[in-house]
Amino acid sequence: MSDRLGELARRRGFFFQANEAYGGVSGFYTYGPEGAALKRNVEDAWRDRFVTREGNMEIDSPTVTPEPVFVASGHLDGFDDMLVECGECGESHRADHVVEDETDIEDAETYSTEKVEAIIAEHDLGCPSCGAPLAGRPVEEFNLMFETSIGPGSGQPGYLRPETAQGMFTEFPRLKEYARERLPFGVAQVGAGYRNEISPRNALVRAREFTMAELEYFVDPEGDGPDLSRVADVELPLYPSDAQQADGEEYVRLTPRDAVDEGVVRGEWVAYFLARSKQWFERVGVDMDRFRFRQHLPGELAHYATDCWDAEGEVDGDWIELEGVASRTDYDLSKHAEHADDSFTVFKQYDEPKTVERAAVDPEMSYLGPEFGGDAGAVADALQALAERDRAAFEGDEVTVEVGGETYTVPTEQTGFAVEEVTESGRHVVPHVVEPAFGVGRAVYTVLAHNYDTDEVEGEQRDVLRLPAAVAPTTVGVFPLMDKDGLGERARDVAAALREAGLAVTYDDSGNIGRRYRRQDEVGTPYCVTVDYDTLEDDTATLRDRDTTDQVRVPVADLPDVLAGLRDGERAFGDL
Amino acid sequence: MSDRLGELARRRGFFFQANEAYGGVSGFYTYGPEGAALKRNVEDAWRDRFVTREGNMEIDSPTVTPEPVFVASGHLDGFDDMLVECGECGESHRADHVVEDETDIEDAETYSTEKVEAIIAEHDLGCPSCGAPLAGRPVEEFNLMFETSIGPGSGQPGYLRPETAQGMFTEFPRLKEYARERLPFGVAQVGAGYRNEISPRNALVRAREFTMAELEYFVDPEGDGPDLSRVADVELPLYPSDAQQADGEEYVRLTPRDAVDEGVVRGEWVAYFLARSKQWFERVGVDMDRFRFRQHLPGELAHYATDCWDAEGEVDGDWIELEGVASRTDYDLSKHAEHADDSFTVFKQYDEPKTVERAAVDPEMSYLGPEFGGDAGAVADALQALAERDRAAFEGDEVTVEVGGETYTVPTEQTGFAVEEVTESGRHVVPHVVEPAFGVGRAVYTVLAHNYDTDEVEGEQRDVLRLPAAVAPTTVGVFPLMDKDGLGERARDVAAALREAGLAVTYDDSGNIGRRYRRQDEVGTPYCVTVDYDTLEDDTATLRDRDTTDQVRVPVADLPDVLAGLRDGERAFGDL
Repeated sequence: MSDRLGELARRRGFFFQANEAYGGVSGFYTYGPEGAALKRNVEDAWRDRFVTREGNMEIDSPTVTPEPVFVASGHLDGFDDMLVECGECGESHRADHVVEDETDIEDAETYSTEKVEAIIAEHDLGCPSCGAPLAGRPVEEFNLMFETSIGPGSGQPGYLRPETAQGMFTEFPRLKEYARERLPFGVAQVGAGYRNEISPRNALVRAREFTMAELEYFVDPEGDGPDLSRVADVELPLYPSDAQQADGEEYVRLTPRDAVDEGVVRGEWVAYFLARSKQWFERVGVDMDRFRFRQHLPGELAHYATDCWDAEGEVDGDWIELEGVASRTDYDLSKHAEHADDSFTVFKQYDEPKTVERAAVDPEMSYLGPEFGGDAGAVADALQALAERDRAAFEGDEVTVEVGGETYTVPTEQTGFAVEEVTESGRHVVPHVVEPAFGVGRAVYTVLAHNYDTDEVEGEQRDVLRLPAAVAPTTVGVFPLMDKDGLGERARDVAAALREAGLAVTYDDSGNIGRRYRRQDEVGTPYCVTVDYDTLEDDTATLRDRDTTDQVRVPVADLPDVLAGLRDGERAFGDL
Repeated sequence: MSDRLGELARRRGFFFQANEAYGGVSGFYTYGPEGAALKRNVEDAWRDRFVTREGNMEIDSPTVTPEPVFVASGHLDGFDDMLVECGECGESHRADHVVEDETDIEDAETYSTEKVEAIIAEHDLGCPSCGAPLAGRPVEEFNLMFETSIGPGSGQPGYLRPETAQGMFTEFPRLKEYARERLPFGVAQVGAGYRNEISPRNALVRAREFTMAELEYFVDPEGDGPDLSRVADVELPLYPSDAQQADGEEYVRLTPRDAVDEGVVRGEWVAYFLARSKQWFERVGVDMDRFRFRQHLPGELAHYATDCWDAEGEVDGDWIELEGVASRTDYDLSKHAEHADDSFTVFKQYDEPKTVERAAVDPEMSYLGPEFGGDAGAVADALQALAERDRAAFEGDEVTVEVGGETYTVPTEQTGFAVEEVTESGRHVVPHVVEPAFGVGRAVYTVLAHNYDTDEVEGEQRDVLRLPAAVAPTTVGVFPLMDKDGLGERARDVAAALREAGLAVTYDDSGNIGRRYRRQDEVGTPYCVTVDYDTLEDDTATLRDRDTTDQVRVPVADLPDVLAGLRDGERAFGDL
């Protein structure tokens, strides 16, 4: 973070390290009054774009989550970073970062712990804190979930969710009912996520507690795609994996339709959400000249994903990941279907009934019961699931299934496996998931960085935050020229009327007018209204534009409509 | 929770136990699409009332909090419930609840663990789960904070905040700067709180993870109170502590001014916030005939508080605590000033400089240094604080101060204690705190319970949720009479135009119109618009009112304004 932005953030109350009076703890930030308002406006703009206008649903699920959910999702096993602790000073570091910072290696994150250990020894790398050699120190996997215990006594293990997404997946059996089992449908959530980072850095960019906005869009893998003509006017700045591998910084600029047709983006839904994302980032104030979609490299892509693009914004020479749009296939719902006790499919009605072959089991419970005791029922369910998934598994003498981490082997003849012809009115489909997942704090940070500007006004340097009116913490500052002769009362009435009209208003009567303008400029307030002696005569007030510093006289009675129109982009200041 | 309300909540997506596919864990709830929207509207209405209209600030601080904060606040030591574990079935119970449920004792919560143990033995109380005797089982204090570990390795202890309030207190040194050190000012937060309840119960009422909306209002203890004439039209339904002790259910109905003047409510700010709270509860749909403010009994009141009133709503015969309005004196800020390394005072400028006596120390560091080593500086600070607080402490031969839990004794002559005359331009004031603290989930729950109604429409029973339009998840349902002859397209256009105007819209074309009306009635949608063949002719549509089921024809072009006016209470359906 640039010192200048950090200083603004602290001094004017955008964000700062939490609990600094107690020394603070890395990776935790408090949004002050300006920052909390900006963040809320960014979230509301997201909700408007990805929930309301898309006709999607939004839910609100708990952050404390029981362990079995993360066994199913894979986070308990796989949500790790590589840790190395200095034997000298005791500081912990991300081992892959130590390697990447001190050698030419760029993808140490994908290496094994043994390999990273060997590289540290080979290059004789030192502790970033004290310089002592790290060679010989063990490199270990460190799970990034914050753990806690639910309930009294030994309790049961719980974790703070590392993402909001699992809420949409685990509640899918209910959510599909609210959607009346009609695909596609989307479920969103805006809320806290937690990662116990080994070394948090770069302020809001790699924090331990953060806000995410995620949309899980459930689609029929054989269904129609979106109507890409709705986003035909959006040009996507794409940085495909092959261009990255060729070490070029060449972006391909394509419409969503062309990006799909030319095979650059794999999947129409991914292309659609990239377009909607770009529109949203532009609306909240990310500079489109410092914005791109970077495709995941083959080694970077999760094994189940068919494509993934990160929206990135450039700040101080670094590209910050602001969003990931991933095509996750049926991975998430299938994993939960395996581990949980409910249905994660949608029943898709055929236009007319079909006769189909169906593989099913009818296990000999008199065999399974004595053999597997209390697990017999679960084994039978697993056999049925296996029959539906993989008929070939029943070709041998024995069938093996896994239940709750245990392996069970059943003689095929005891499974009652058969393939029969049945007439079906429809079938159960595991929806595929397309997931646009946004980091709200990173968006706020990038918007601040991209809009903090300096210019010159009347010969003096001015710091100005050119936030779009739609997300600015305050829409209008209201000032009396002086707090006397009834100007203060009149200005307070104006402020009250504007608040009543739903505008975000700041009232300020301290210091000279120029200083009050500067104060609002620096927190991004797009408009200021000054009540002066003419106001008392003719019921007009001065309306001043932040970016141009132009001023016009506007009837006080018109201010609520004029300002709402300016904020919502329905009017331009130049036309007043 | 009534079965009927619980069934509605699950079936229509208001709220349900989280992660049920994994068996769920008590005390954690997911808000479904309808509930999340209702909750957000309730929060927005709160923000409008307690932040925007009051000109207060809002912040957003982390939920994971380092231990020293809760040492200072007292939560680490005192945020306990009494736990007893059954020796037979192993279930844990709140020991005070076991006593209260099975005896005539009503305030077991205030007893010592020994006393509760003795009562359990004396009455031979049994385990609420299995009936086994609990006599002889130890009753222990169980801290209700969820604990976690921050950072790798042994890390440092952190806790999930049990309330949002500490965020406003620990960040006070910055917040006062944003308020330019002018009292009074208020800082609010809407966010998650966590309590590791021993036995969660009653759905959203006693959950382990919940949402709070809290306002910390910082006032000058010698400053002016609020202008109570602004709330002169509010009648407070007060249930004072003496009426409770007299076992009467007699409420006193007074305006805020009279309540203060008659000594029923202690403090003008408390009375002011009770009035604003009542207005807000009424606006979001709490039934004012089942609502009261109950004063804390003397034994119930925190030792530092001068008064506290709970807003309570009656559901199924129980009074649910929805909010507490407490006058907390300087307790919170003083505690943090003792433990943290920053200033928790506000500098109050005098109208003109004053000459005053000031007690100060000038400790002999050549004595303190060798004597107390690294703690010498902290001891010196503690002596200074003591001198300012209590001159009498320096009258004896020795002075005792506490630093970081340790006691240090210093000969008075080594402290350099003196009282001198100084001229001051102002003085540092520790603001007092008045805190209205709301449980958002409890408000949502009560609003649902108070508005779920049954009536008869055209001879059929109807379930209807009479939510105020301002908080209903959906403001308007839009239906085509049938999805043919262009009616569907037209209705979708109407829905899009209403969404564009910022209204919460549901589009529904499945089932007959009556059934679609019922569906919206049950989730509290106040208005429905039906597009029919006349619409294609004359550009009007049917607008239907949920509560009366009355219908009027309205020009399609007028719908956005008409519906926004109805939602905001600026129009009445009967006048259309």
